[in-house]
Amino acid sequence: MRTTSVGVFKLATRGPGDVSGLMDLIVSGAINPASILAVLGKTEGNGGVNDFTREYAVAALSTALAPKLGLTPHEVEQRIAFVMSGGTEGVLSPHITVFTRRQVETSPKGISGKRLSIGMAQTRDFLPEELGRSAQIAETAKAVKAAMADAGITDPIDVHFVQIKCPLLTSERVEAAAARGNKTATISSYSSMAYSRGASALGVAVALGEVTSDICDEDVLRRYDLFSKVASTSSGIELMHNVVIVLGNSETSASAFEIGHAVMNDAIDAAAVVSALQSVGLGANPQPGRELVNIFAKAEASPDGSVRGFRHTMLEDTDISSTRHARAAVGGLIAGLAGTGVVYVSGGAEHQGPAGGGPVAAISRLF
Amino acid sequence: MRTTSVGVFKLATRGPGDVSGLMDLIVSGAINPASILAVLGKTEGNGGVNDFTREYAVAALSTALAPKLGLTPHEVEQRIAFVMSGGTEGVLSPHITVFTRRQVETSPKGISGKRLSIGMAQTRDFLPEELGRSAQIAETAKAVKAAMADAGITDPIDVHFVQIKCPLLTSERVEAAAARGNKTATISSYSSMAYSRGASALGVAVALGEVTSDICDEDVLRRYDLFSKVASTSSGIELMHNVVIVLGNSETSASAFEIGHAVMNDAIDAAAVVSALQSVGLGANPQPGRELVNIFAKAEASPDGSVRGFRHTMLEDTDISSTRHARAAVGGLIAGLAGTGVVYVSGGAEHQGPAGGGPVAAISRLF
Amino acid sequence: MRTTSVGVFKLATRGPGDVSGLMDLIVSGAINPASILAVLGKTEGNGGVNDFTREYAVAALSTALAPKLGLTPHEVEQRIAFVMSGGTEGVLSPHITVFTRRQVETSPKGISGKRLSIGMAQTRDFLPEELGRSAQIAETAKAVKAAMADAGITDPIDVHFVQIKCPLLTSERVEAAAARGNKTATISSYSSMAYSRGASALGVAVALGEVTSDICDEDVLRRYDLFSKVASTSSGIELMHNVVIVLGNSETSASAFEIGHAVMNDAIDAAAVVSALQSVGLGANPQPGRELVNIFAKAEASPDGSVRGFRHTMLEDTDISSTRHARAAVGGLIAGLAGTGVVYVSGGAEHQGPAGGGPVAAISRLF
Amino acid sequence: MRTTSVGVFKLATRGPGDVSGLMDLIVSGAINPASILAVLGKTEGNGGVNDFTREYAVAALSTALAPKLGLTPHEVEQRIAFVMSGGTEGVLSPHITVFTRRQVETSPKGISGKRLSIGMAQTRDFLPEELGRSAQIAETAKAVKAAMADAGITDPIDVHFVQIKCPLLTSERVEAAAARGNKTATISSYSSMAYSRGASALGVAVALGEVTSDICDEDVLRRYDLFSKVASTSSGIELMHNVVIVLGNSETSASAFEIGHAVMNDAIDAAAVVSALQSVGLGANPQPGRELVNIFAKAEASPDGSVRGFRHTMLEDTDISSTRHARAAVGGLIAGLAGTGVVYVSGGAEHQGPAGGGPVAAISRLF
Repeated sequence: MRTTSVGVFKLATRGPGDVSGLMDLIVSGAINPASILAVLGKTEGNGGVNDFTREYAVAALSTALAPKLGLTPHEVEQRIAFVMSGGTEGVLSPHITVFTRRQVETSPKGISGKRLSIGMAQTRDFLPEELGRSAQIAETAKAVKAAMADAGITDPIDVHFVQIKCPLLTSERVEAAAARGNKTATISSYSSMAYSRGASALGVAVALGEVTSDICDEDVLRRYDLFSKVASTSSGIELMHNVVIVLGNSETSASAFEIGHAVMNDAIDAAAVVSALQSVGLGANPQPGRELVNIFAKAEASPDGSVRGFRHTMLEDTDISSTRHARAAVGGLIAGLAGTGVVYVSGGAEHQGPAGGGPVAAISRLF
Repeated sequence: MRTTSVGVFKLATRGPGDVSGLMDLIVSGAINPASILAVLGKTEGNGGVNDFTREYAVAALSTALAPKLGLTPHEVEQRIAFVMSGGTEGVLSPHITVFTRRQVETSPKGISGKRLSIGMAQTRDFLPEELGRSAQIAETAKAVKAAMADAGITDPIDVHFVQIKCPLLTSERVEAAAARGNKTATISSYSSMAYSRGASALGVAVALGEVTSDICDEDVLRRYDLFSKVASTSSGIELMHNVVIVLGNSETSASAFEIGHAVMNDAIDAAAVVSALQSVGLGANPQPGRELVNIFAKAEASPDGSVRGFRHTMLEDTDISSTRHARAAVGGLIAGLAGTGVVYVSGGAEHQGPAGGGPVAAISRLF
Repeated sequence: MRTTSVGVFKLATRGPGDVSGLMDLIVSGAINPASILAVLGKTEGNGGVNDFTREYAVAALSTALAPKLGLTPHEVEQRIAFVMSGGTEGVLSPHITVFTRRQVETSPKGISGKRLSIGMAQTRDFLPEELGRSAQIAETAKAVKAAMADAGITDPIDVHFVQIKCPLLTSERVEAAAARGNKTATISSYSSMAYSRGASALGVAVALGEVTSDICDEDVLRRYDLFSKVASTSSGIELMHNVVIVLGNSETSASAFEIGHAVMNDAIDAAAVVSALQSVGLGANPQPGRELVNIFAKAEASPDGSVRGFRHTMLEDTDISSTRHARAAVGGLIAGLAGTGVVYVSGGAEHQGPAGGGPVAAISRLF
Repeated sequence: MRTTSVGVFKLATRGPGDVSGLMDLIVSGAINPASILAVLGKTEGNGGVNDFTREYAVAALSTALAPKLGLTPHEVEQRIAFVMSGGTEGVLSPHITVFTRRQVETSPKGISGKRLSIGMAQTRDFLPEELGRSAQIAETAKAVKAAMADAGITDPIDVHFVQIKCPLLTSERVEAAAARGNKTATISSYSSMAYSRGASALGVAVALGEVTSDICDEDVLRRYDLFSKVASTSSGIELMHNVVIVLGNSETSASAFEIGHAVMNDAIDAAAVVSALQSVGLGANPQPGRELVNIFAKAEASPDGSVRGFRHTMLEDTDISSTRHARAAVGGLIAGLAGTGVVYVSGGAEHQGPAGGGPVAAISRLF
């Protein structure tokens, strides 16, 4: 019995403050604002600590949606999961992907197989000293399970992408911990983004049974053999808890979309990108009646300083952060294979796929 | 009758000053230093005006080769064409490709078809006010024809890559022109790199008959419908003339290598990269007895601000120059399809391929 | 007879979206929102084409002020002149300076001399091809005179700072001009910021009689001997006309503030900074009953590539734009002499002061 | 009895490879190459891990000096202390300062007071895991004492500047330590520069009695109340030991120069710069017969994120490293007060002066 329907809308943006694409769809009736569950966006900042395009985009969307939903902008932010990933280096093109969900009364005919489903959950607020450590891992794992239940997914094999929004440390937060006599995992804001992303990804791995051993604080950003194949985590300054969005396929979904994934073993793993496309009927010889909606991938500079045995220079560049390098390169590869730069490639893939690699998921629309 | 043999050696470097790979091959006898004609390298600077890794690499190579050749370092620089392209963004890996050429007494047996050949020529020194204008175009065209003759190539169809090293403007050079009452094409050093690259590429197009109409000063960096499909030009501060290196296939060559090329129509043209690989028997189903030596490509941010209809942000990023963005993205795509980041992707493709695209050449070794 | 009173409030911000300082002063009654005429801010973006912190700050302020003024955010933007200068490099600290103006019924007693006055005016919208050329110069000059009248200032000697907000070119705007068969002054967005700033500054010079000869299109960004000693111009993507704010001293003002200025002849002109401070009774031996409110200055890399005969490297750095370098350096000097990093130092001083220098104004409060 | 004479020559450079200024002085006889003890330079790279201008400058100088000294370039590097500090942000101008030392047979007449003296010493090579920890501190302290003795200085009060060149970690070095089962202080190359600079500075503080308590590993980059007032440390990839240069005044010197210093308490401490100038008879009212040779200072972004109570944004900028910001700002202030951008301002002042501040030394010539 299919009870929910999920919609996916990819909209190009003209700037971080551009909400016109979404507003047009709402005005035309194509999107019921009350059905919006999550928005994943690529904004054109640097993706680092001082990337204000993320919060600007969220502020613009919240302000624009508020009157449509009869809420304050702040309430909109509480209700909808906005995940803005900064950095559209190279050919990447700024855009947002809007996910909607609604109940369906009667199961539509002619749908076979599992279809795209989405679920959400949140952790409690973390203390600064919990970021990048086991508390963040354990709480995230609980939230992933709750989000799976919300999505109507029971088997971890049906989970293809878990997007998490997680906090980072600021000077103030580090000081607050110190005032309580506690040390944070790092005192650098930039480094804390990696710690938070890494621990959140390990939480996904725990929830999905991808890692069975116990994980301790020291493993974060060190034991890169521990990872999730479907986790995608982004850290931002605007929250102190984790927001978890599970994307997968479910029998309960009446959606027109399917999702699949593969794992890039390194930053030049073209075969994995092709495999992700093929998993939803696309690629070199696409199935008729299918089209690409979007690709979601994580990228990082391999921490050992090399790709297939040859040195890269991303980690030793003081002018451009390694996350910007990695998004540009992996974005170039995925855009080339997908035929478009309007794809979601996000940086910082600590414990998200193997070291230097990352998950790559594809959503196709069936028509 | 095959009279020359060309060798191609690709060597990873540990830094811009690292000459150990080449020295090892000379010591072992694999390379006769007297046979070295040209060195094309990727160094890890920013590829911009203040990229000193290029001149450092040239200084290190010249100093190391000097005693081997019985010349001063300065004489080595005059004799061998060193083309260092700065910028190994993303997965690109610093390396040099050494081209050697020697006469063969007797034509080896068992070689069929045209094989890799290389020729060189130089223009006269330019005045600063000639850069980016018709004088540079016309002189370059003459030098391309001379280099073809040097390579034993008569038909332009056999030319697959023309690498040119060209000058740029500095504040001093702009002032020198002004002191003579002349205006340069631009007063910005950074912009002058584009002008010089563009005019040099148009010189190749004229020489090879790719452009038949007259080209005037105003066309440079404006008429992007005028371009060469095989030109690759890099500007550097260390010279005031153009050095032209023609790579193609010739019946006169007894070399173990073949070269082919394709043209990327935009920065995500995966099909063109595959086509270039296939032109030398490589790609998804490679011919037996062949292996990739290197790929040579040019990359740029499309000047109209979009790729296949969607906006890119490379030209409006004040933090990272568009050439760095473009190298990272195109480098990611080519590395993915070639299976290695040790490829030569150079930025600034003005009039080198269509706007936003660029030439891509591949060299394979037959064994 | 003193008829107007001008208030100046300097408020530190915690981020480009932080409006809490201003809102607190409105709630406490210290500022009547209806009296706000202009807001000059330093935001922490890169100050370049893709600096979205400027428009984010304006959006945040407009949205916050809208309910206080009974206007829509868009109407707030039309009513109040928001000039956000991006770039708080080095020790510069993000902040806003709020200027208020109100009519006073009775001339307060005990005020002698001229006091701080403020006036505003706008030009018509410009065509893209008018930017950086004589049309922009002439229209700006008219607006400066209108703003002087609005400020109650008749003698140019009483004008100490003219802040202008001016447009820039985008790819779309360049294309729009081309579609009409017209060439813009430049096709680069980044360069267009300099052209627009330069022409606007020359408009001030014309209005104040600082330049008496005719100025033609070719003089912009070339004849650096033509300049205004009080112009400060910032270009932004969000408008197509110039907004002119004149700050000076007037007998008609009953304000508690005074403004004065000096001209930095180069980027290390400490004496000029001291002179500006002394002009309002501050400096090493301040007059009693006076305190510094803010300093407003423009900075640039000297276009000849040197400072007092020695080479600087700002114009040849491909990693950091020269405006960021110049703000950091001049900001360091001014902050050192003023004793605080909360000063307004803005980049891009084309025709604002002599080449490589710029105007520096100081406002002191008398108590 | 004055037995040694020290010379100081400041030479502008046209690029990191420019040795012409020094060669000219050698050819003219002004400098005896055998007397060169140390060269402190500012080169125009980014000052970070991938700043190759430092090693390029050293290679160029060593190669040029080799035939003059009858040594190989490598032997020149062992004999002369080359300390290249990368980063000439803002108004800073690339240059080298050459220090020479020779024995004098007879004490010149008419010299009174202590004069400039210089001494050198080296530590043993460090293991990667020793960097940033107590081993580096203790060994550095020993070397400082040896260098004082070499300079003929007995009282720490006569030491005014201790320049140290120290190693950094690379991926290879981190792995080498890991292969031995040891963890390094950090796994980031960029962070390791700070650790190495910090521990080296603490070594100076220990040697000079500026810190009397025991220092443990955890204090490095944390206990910023522990610092030296005269230490200036620069990390570079090219060595694995510390090179220590002590500059001070001594009765044994017959030099025409004097050195003095002050401590900047924060990055805008103009008074300290003035005090350093006054300590050698310079400043607003200079003593007759004296002229400035150079200023040597260290700069850093204050680790608490603020300067005199107001937030700076240097530590949260993902586009520009905080060391570049700090050099630009402090360089602007010092250049303004010294009247020239040809000053030595080096970044990364961990434990060199108080947090956010740094030492500032001045050398004047008496004539």
